[in-house]
Amino acid sequence: MRPALALRPSSVSRSLGPRRVASFHQCASQWSSRSVAELLQWRPTEKVDDVTVNGFVRSVRSMKTHRFVSLGDGSSLAPLQALVQADDAKDLAVGAAVRLTGSWVSSPGVAQSHELHVSRVEVLGPSDAKTFPIQKKYHTPEYLRTVPHLRPRTPVNSVLLRLRSEVIASLTQFFAARSFTQTHPPIITSSDCEGAGEVFTVMPASDAPATGSNKDNSQAFFFRSKKYLTVSTQLHLEALAQAVGNVWTLSPVFRAEKSDTSRHLSEFYMLEAEMSFVDDLGPVMDLAEDMLRSLSSSLIESSTVRDLLFRSRNSGSDLAPADEVRRRWEGLTRQDWPRITYSDAVALLQQKSDLFEHKPTWGAGLQSEHEKFLAEYVGGGEKPVFVTNYPRDIKAFYMRETQPASPQVPGPTVDCFDLLVPEFCEIAGGSMREHRLDPLLDAMKRHGILKPPLEGASDGSSSSGLDWYVDLRRWGSPPHGGFGVGFDRLLSYLSGVQTIRDIVAFPRWHGRCDC
Amino acid sequence: MRPALALRPSSVSRSLGPRRVASFHQCASQWSSRSVAELLQWRPTEKVDDVTVNGFVRSVRSMKTHRFVSLGDGSSLAPLQALVQADDAKDLAVGAAVRLTGSWVSSPGVAQSHELHVSRVEVLGPSDAKTFPIQKKYHTPEYLRTVPHLRPRTPVNSVLLRLRSEVIASLTQFFAARSFTQTHPPIITSSDCEGAGEVFTVMPASDAPATGSNKDNSQAFFFRSKKYLTVSTQLHLEALAQAVGNVWTLSPVFRAEKSDTSRHLSEFYMLEAEMSFVDDLGPVMDLAEDMLRSLSSSLIESSTVRDLLFRSRNSGSDLAPADEVRRRWEGLTRQDWPRITYSDAVALLQQKSDLFEHKPTWGAGLQSEHEKFLAEYVGGGEKPVFVTNYPRDIKAFYMRETQPASPQVPGPTVDCFDLLVPEFCEIAGGSMREHRLDPLLDAMKRHGILKPPLEGASDGSSSSGLDWYVDLRRWGSPPHGGFGVGFDRLLSYLSGVQTIRDIVAFPRWHGRCDC
Repeated sequence: MRPALALRPSSVSRSLGPRRVASFHQCASQWSSRSVAELLQWRPTEKVDDVTVNGFVRSVRSMKTHRFVSLGDGSSLAPLQALVQADDAKDLAVGAAVRLTGSWVSSPGVAQSHELHVSRVEVLGPSDAKTFPIQKKYHTPEYLRTVPHLRPRTPVNSVLLRLRSEVIASLTQFFAARSFTQTHPPIITSSDCEGAGEVFTVMPASDAPATGSNKDNSQAFFFRSKKYLTVSTQLHLEALAQAVGNVWTLSPVFRAEKSDTSRHLSEFYMLEAEMSFVDDLGPVMDLAEDMLRSLSSSLIESSTVRDLLFRSRNSGSDLAPADEVRRRWEGLTRQDWPRITYSDAVALLQQKSDLFEHKPTWGAGLQSEHEKFLAEYVGGGEKPVFVTNYPRDIKAFYMRETQPASPQVPGPTVDCFDLLVPEFCEIAGGSMREHRLDPLLDAMKRHGILKPPLEGASDGSSSSGLDWYVDLRRWGSPPHGGFGVGFDRLLSYLSGVQTIRDIVAFPRWHGRCDC
Repeated sequence: MRPALALRPSSVSRSLGPRRVASFHQCASQWSSRSVAELLQWRPTEKVDDVTVNGFVRSVRSMKTHRFVSLGDGSSLAPLQALVQADDAKDLAVGAAVRLTGSWVSSPGVAQSHELHVSRVEVLGPSDAKTFPIQKKYHTPEYLRTVPHLRPRTPVNSVLLRLRSEVIASLTQFFAARSFTQTHPPIITSSDCEGAGEVFTVMPASDAPATGSNKDNSQAFFFRSKKYLTVSTQLHLEALAQAVGNVWTLSPVFRAEKSDTSRHLSEFYMLEAEMSFVDDLGPVMDLAEDMLRSLSSSLIESSTVRDLLFRSRNSGSDLAPADEVRRRWEGLTRQDWPRITYSDAVALLQQKSDLFEHKPTWGAGLQSEHEKFLAEYVGGGEKPVFVTNYPRDIKAFYMRETQPASPQVPGPTVDCFDLLVPEFCEIAGGSMREHRLDPLLDAMKRHGILKPPLEGASDGSSSSGLDWYVDLRRWGSPPHGGFGVGFDRLLSYLSGVQTIRDIVAFPRWHGRCDC
């Protein structure tokens, strides 16, 4: 139906349609307001009138005839200082959302070059300061986690939100410049058997059992069989990499583990990248290294990172020491990160075995104390360190076996790496993927993933939920590999936040899913 | 533990650590390969030797002594033509992943200025061409949906993947340039009552009932109470906007509806933006308009969009006609999109009521035929149209009531908009949010969302799961508003894909969650 053409739409729409709602275009004035960060950088030599700023009252200090109002808007760790006449200030409660208009004049104080002499106060969102859960004082991280909907308003938490945003933008730019395709792999998936631990399942809320109920009212599965929240997008990324070459994603992933640590959440973001037509692990490690170096180099001078490295320590936060965090940023900007095989690493650890509680043994995973030692010793305490070629039997089924096997090595290894950073251990992990059909099927049998063929299936299809993944190897699977970075862990490392629960705005872990 | 400093790490790491794995840096040669898209643009006047390209065999045409091989790598809709000696070509099956090396020479054919005269063939991933589900012929969308893991390898689907990537990058750039903070609101949430329809619930797979079982083995909820997959990030975005000002996200959202349409999925991405300190809807609509105009202007000349608008119609696809899609892109680049109130729109529709099957009535939602008419008539068949100020009682609880109410309007309205585009209807929707405590509580009561106070709760807290959202209004809630765009619908509109199931790599809807 296209009546418009018959009805001469342009003349009609002029009279009836456009711009009927005149007020929509009468609000340009609010665009003339500046952020606190912009104002703090603005140092005119003459007084400037009619300056407007929006923000939240952080504190009010009473003088005889005036009030000193400290205003924040999330754009800057440092607040703006505004001078308000006592009569105008009576509704300026801590936490209130206000619009202040006045003159921007150079300040006699040392903390700030200019301050706002306010002639007009508008309280746009009042606050009951007495009950406001965020006061201008030190709050423990544990307390702030009980009010996640208000926690972002603290100055340090707003810096962390801006850091996340800038990191996403920088990574998007990095991958776009290298013609990597950004993708959206699925969240609800068929497979629960990637060996990443306990998973969540999903069902329509109306089909779910109520606690305490003894009845199962799910008549049939919404998706015909049981489905899960993804634990990693890698397998789907591999399918996409066979279509468009190099791909990446920044996607939420989920674990239903009941662990209660500073490093685990039930819901978190993973950055994953997959490269097609790469013969060995070299280019994959190069990409991880280039990515983190590009990221840190592009942001180390940003005002957000300067806030983190210098200013945020004044505000009673629980971040790692500023020197330590600065060392992390500088380490990431360095060239030529060391690469050492797992077997050489174990040999090195065994030479120093008196330093460790756990004896380093070939074939076992590296303990946290081992990883810390390697980061310090091999990386010189500054550069990240790639540890490669772990034993096959402690790694995931999809990793490609190292060939030829080294005669000096006690058992089969796989082409994989963990990237270790000082004081923090693993920050990324990657591997070549087994791209050949028969070796993949062998590995799946070895890991107990390949279930017996379904009854009646003559083609060997199984109930593992991974038939499609095996299928990828039947038609044109070139050598490929990739890596994953726990995005929230990376942000914790970059910010100095001590627990991952405090880098995520609304963290979810066992027993906790507030808001 | 920092033994490194005592052990002089730099000297030790030189001998033990770095660069042990020499082969990691011996693979520079593969970086000298070019993508098909790059090669197709490369028109040297002289023959160039030692040119390498990676890709997948799309077809093989037999000549007497040679084979013409059509090679694709997802970078371009058009394939590269390679000339291979018959003896070298025996393993070049359709679907195989290959690396071809040879001379890049000008071609006598008209289709392509140059072709690759191949001297070396490497089959990196063989293919059983007879069983390969993607043949060089027309496949129906229905068939391709049965092989989602292979579907991205079709030329049109690889263009769609690249379009998604370029749109994400363009939007990231748009918002970063305007100092919007990109955020990651939670996926698992507490509330099921935003009125967006049926929701999914999550639980650890080990606690979930098996189908047909009569037992409920969930002893207690993993998160202490029932939790849901988010249907919209808006409520959380509002909390973040109170911390850092303007925010946005591109996040997966979920609906457990059993609808079977070309416009609905159980899992899809939403782009949502929220602006703080905006007095009315004008700046919110300006932002939506600027965003879509910036996006279309930045991409309309890209090779991906040129592939979509011109070339993809040659390959037996099911896309909307190229002229129609070109008109969509051009419409989005236009200035000054018309804005009309719902009430004026209904009056206009009533004047033309003989055109419609459903009688236009104030207080009812607009039917699809009404929206199509408005897009054509008010927008002139090219510009998108904002329809604003819908009746309060057919919109969500959180929308701010229009004040003062217009005496010409039969009932209360809210400050909201739907953005309509020709032939496609709603592509975005937004509103001012009720930022004041008491009007919000009234609206929640009216919508039946505010449940009676919990027993023992003297502060009026309820069991709605939205106490935190109400809380935001207690302490400093400025006027704010935002909008949401169904991201996959937007991509369908921009690409001409007729059903949303074909714009998502791994689509999920009722009964279907393959791979």
